[in-house]
Amino acid sequence: MRYAPTIARLISELGKLPGIGGKSAQRLAFHILSMPEEKVRDLSDSIVLARESVRLCSVCQNYTDTDPCSVCDDPSRDRKTICVVENPRDVSTMERMREYRGLYHVLHGVYSPLQNVGLDSLKLKELITRLQKDNEIREVILATNQTAEGEATAMYIARLIKPSGIRVTRIASGLPMGSDLEFADDITLSKAMRARHEF
Amino acid sequence: MRYAPTIARLISELGKLPGIGGKSAQRLAFHILSMPEEKVRDLSDSIVLARESVRLCSVCQNYTDTDPCSVCDDPSRDRKTICVVENPRDVSTMERMREYRGLYHVLHGVYSPLQNVGLDSLKLKELITRLQKDNEIREVILATNQTAEGEATAMYIARLIKPSGIRVTRIASGLPMGSDLEFADDITLSKAMRARHEF
Repeated sequence: MRYAPTIARLISELGKLPGIGGKSAQRLAFHILSMPEEKVRDLSDSIVLARESVRLCSVCQNYTDTDPCSVCDDPSRDRKTICVVENPRDVSTMERMREYRGLYHVLHGVYSPLQNVGLDSLKLKELITRLQKDNEIREVILATNQTAEGEATAMYIARLIKPSGIRVTRIASGLPMGSDLEFADDITLSKAMRARHEF
Repeated sequence: MRYAPTIARLISELGKLPGIGGKSAQRLAFHILSMPEEKVRDLSDSIVLARESVRLCSVCQNYTDTDPCSVCDDPSRDRKTICVVENPRDVSTMERMREYRGLYHVLHGVYSPLQNVGLDSLKLKELITRLQKDNEIREVILATNQTAEGEATAMYIARLIKPSGIRVTRIASGLPMGSDLEFADDITLSKAMRARHEF
């Protein structure tokens, strides 16, 4: 049985989204077909509107609809610290913790030669210019992911910033809370051992 | 941190889709924001277009963009048999098997008083009218799900059709292939025992 071309197209478009496999795309498509037409329009509008209205904050490069964004514009934030993250989602993750009160810088990727992501496509120039212009900044926390690419990117940025005298730190790697030693991988374990501290 | 209202709206719209929780909605939203604008428009168009162009086949009630649909219109199909399924997705599942060559009838739901789905909202009248008009039909296979609701709906339809003299069958329930007896639930096991056959 062939699908109607418009259904086939919808399934294929949905299947391009991350984490949506063939079966999920089908389930979503059939759900959309069963929705009232105005609800479908709400969904479709929200997609286009979000993409159209959202731009990058000229300071931290996070997604925003105002410039500067609500974090960069918040006078209660600590302007001495910048936390560098890979992508906008990481900003919301950090904010969820409700502990960090400094600013952010979003790289929009990590250095990944295997996936053809070079250093040029990251928002690195913007970070350097920001550090040069803003002499309030005392610390840059590198919070890229604990992956080969995240580590390499963090190391590269650290080397780039260090000469300026600004303190550069990396968020700790170790055993996650609630985890069993037995199931820890070797690299995590060895990192956790090397980073041990007095009790 | 508050999200930009358009991002918040996108996350909320995506989160209304089945199987998309809060975290997935966020991941999808940020992915959409990172897509080129024309790709976003493709996605949004495919959603509206599919919903607008697709209607129900006047014969089998499946989604289609032609009327009758490609299955009902296919002269090579066996017109003596109708397989009754809960929803359009089930038609694709049956077709994937490439074994069944009869026609379909899509109920668009099951009788589920707990979820306020009455018999009136199912495409039951359409099935009965179809059986009355089309005297080629010899067998109706009830392939609603093996759930309480699916069983109840099948039983109800069987009772409705039986007086007409058309053969009414139910797809078999039993242990799925590759499964261990040990992990079978009691109802499945008892059904499998009762439906045992000569070897």
